[in-house]
Amino acid sequence: MQNFTFYAPTYFVFGKDTEKQAGSMVKQFGGTKVLIHYGGGSVVRSGLLDRVKASLEAEGISYTELGGVKPNPRSGLVYEGIKLCKEEKVDFILAVGGGSTIDSSKAIASGVVYDGDFWDFYCGKPIEKALPVGTILTIAAAGSEGSPDSVITREEDMMKRGASGNAIRPRFSILNPALTQTLPPYQTAAGITDIMAHLYERYLTNTEEVEVTDRLIEALLLTMKHEGPRVIEDPNNYEARANIMWAGMMAHNNSCGVGRSQDWNSHNIEHELSALYDCAHGAGLAVTMPAVFRYVMNHNVMRFAQVATRVWGCSMDFAHPEATALEGIAKMQAFFTSIGMPSDFAGIGAKEEDIPTLVENLCCGNGRDGTISGFVTLDKEDCTRIYKMMV
Amino acid sequence: MQNFTFYAPTYFVFGKDTEKQAGSMVKQFGGTKVLIHYGGGSVVRSGLLDRVKASLEAEGISYTELGGVKPNPRSGLVYEGIKLCKEEKVDFILAVGGGSTIDSSKAIASGVVYDGDFWDFYCGKPIEKALPVGTILTIAAAGSEGSPDSVITREEDMMKRGASGNAIRPRFSILNPALTQTLPPYQTAAGITDIMAHLYERYLTNTEEVEVTDRLIEALLLTMKHEGPRVIEDPNNYEARANIMWAGMMAHNNSCGVGRSQDWNSHNIEHELSALYDCAHGAGLAVTMPAVFRYVMNHNVMRFAQVATRVWGCSMDFAHPEATALEGIAKMQAFFTSIGMPSDFAGIGAKEEDIPTLVENLCCGNGRDGTISGFVTLDKEDCTRIYKMMV
Repeated sequence: MQNFTFYAPTYFVFGKDTEKQAGSMVKQFGGTKVLIHYGGGSVVRSGLLDRVKASLEAEGISYTELGGVKPNPRSGLVYEGIKLCKEEKVDFILAVGGGSTIDSSKAIASGVVYDGDFWDFYCGKPIEKALPVGTILTIAAAGSEGSPDSVITREEDMMKRGASGNAIRPRFSILNPALTQTLPPYQTAAGITDIMAHLYERYLTNTEEVEVTDRLIEALLLTMKHEGPRVIEDPNNYEARANIMWAGMMAHNNSCGVGRSQDWNSHNIEHELSALYDCAHGAGLAVTMPAVFRYVMNHNVMRFAQVATRVWGCSMDFAHPEATALEGIAKMQAFFTSIGMPSDFAGIGAKEEDIPTLVENLCCGNGRDGTISGFVTLDKEDCTRIYKMMV
Repeated sequence: MQNFTFYAPTYFVFGKDTEKQAGSMVKQFGGTKVLIHYGGGSVVRSGLLDRVKASLEAEGISYTELGGVKPNPRSGLVYEGIKLCKEEKVDFILAVGGGSTIDSSKAIASGVVYDGDFWDFYCGKPIEKALPVGTILTIAAAGSEGSPDSVITREEDMMKRGASGNAIRPRFSILNPALTQTLPPYQTAAGITDIMAHLYERYLTNTEEVEVTDRLIEALLLTMKHEGPRVIEDPNNYEARANIMWAGMMAHNNSCGVGRSQDWNSHNIEHELSALYDCAHGAGLAVTMPAVFRYVMNHNVMRFAQVATRVWGCSMDFAHPEATALEGIAKMQAFFTSIGMPSDFAGIGAKEEDIPTLVENLCCGNGRDGTISGFVTLDKEDCTRIYKMMV
């Protein structure tokens, strides 16, 4: 196991009706003038936004608001949010929505207290200071409610990049599984896929002898395998929603990723797809992961055989471990398909002729040196082959 | 799943040589005058205490010290520590040792800033204020390094009771698995048993549909089952020590116990044993748990069958689930025996004739009403039978 530090000080309030505590939580964490940041549609229609405002008002906390966050959140709205926060002297940002809204809020939080362009943080500059952020989560997927991470797409060139820092880890996160019950099946399935991807990215390690984190990751994958189909079958199944919601947080707050090298190649390869085609990130991952895994499998066949047997219920073929590994990947892909996720380029509106552009952005964008690294280091030729496997 | 809150803001520094960061961590968390609290023997002999002092000195932090913590830590030393901290104007307590030292440190921390008797907190008064505590862990067992809990024995009547509060959750904990390599096999095994008990206490729930936390608990039990024998076989196995150490923290910071009722009857029943006979807490648990589980098993046979199949590798007997449940309990007990733990009263120096005293202290001590509750509510007759099963 590698040396590590782990610090996850977010205060979680989990369960039915917990959004009513928004005002008291903001107060507890020192907010006096709040920016409520959200997407649109359902947060407004469901009455959630009104309940949140009422909760703030009950505590005498003033607020301003900024809606319009889109999936794969954009830099344009971040700049707008930073300007608004400065004008209104906002001292706390309350994200009401899913990962996109939370990531946009984190970007704004980092930019308000920084003199330069917030995009610097998405080019590798560590975030050391930010306004405090709280979240009310409406989609179980990104894990941004408990993580120090944010992903933003720069509009001028559709470059999708991530930033990280404990300063943008939410001070509190309110998780009410009932709020996710109105999510359409496709977004629910994309969320499930994203959570499972966060687990696989940690599972694919080059660090040896990390049984405890292997087992924790497998535990969360098994949970998703059990609860995913139940929630697709019955969107109102509160218990299944609750199990998925806590698994989604645990999958990405890094408690099961400490002390081991991680992959993240699938995420990087997918980011180019959702940036260019604006597909759901989870849907892109459902297409990307099977291709990547088949391509890199021989780097450590036993690791893929292990997850195949422990999670996917495959019988170990001791004479041909690679057969077990392949069977596990096939079962994972069949699982994604069974919950309504696509399995190829056509399913996410991607085009074979764009592959050179995708590869160029992926391997050479934002100062990369022609490769991406993780479980295996991949160059342009590797990435071209992987994208072609998805066609 | 029940509604819950979860807040675990301890900063963990994990890995080789991390004790050298003691000074910088104390500084980071605002300590200027430190009480170094420890047991004795090995912490001194190994040179660890000197390394910690050097690290504090390097940061210009002054300190005083108080050794002498014993397993099943006593109230007498706590009073002494409180007096010393007040005299020396200590503003930070640094525990160097295992769960007993950390628990004693937490008790001192709560007492220094409280006008009354610190024992009030161990009779149910919530701890709302305390001096900050940091830890350098030398035994993987109690999980106190990441928990808001402390257990102390009052000397005059050997009453062993717990207190809890986020104020006594360590600000930081330094976990170097190499420091546990010198621990004798018996204490190592007792620690392994204690960690597994923390998992079982959470597993035995009356809350339905908690797949995510079930799976996480099973993951950590599987880890202990794999790594326990490896570390008993080779005490210098750093990787096995590391996996056990992180599992021990995760087993008790409650990330896998949220949203579900928990048991803790085994701990309560055992506490009377270690209080009266001063046996190792883990050894007492190895004797207690099989008896308790066999006694309460029929309350929910399927729960015991689940852990038997998922953790202990039993084949499910679908016609007789109780047979599978019993087989799982037998395998658990055989595991404890295999790592050197006792299995009956004789093994911990307990005497059958003391059972009435044990039961009286257990069920009526400290204002209890004649019963203890958890997975099942147990009265004096139940507890008498359970103790008799251990003879």
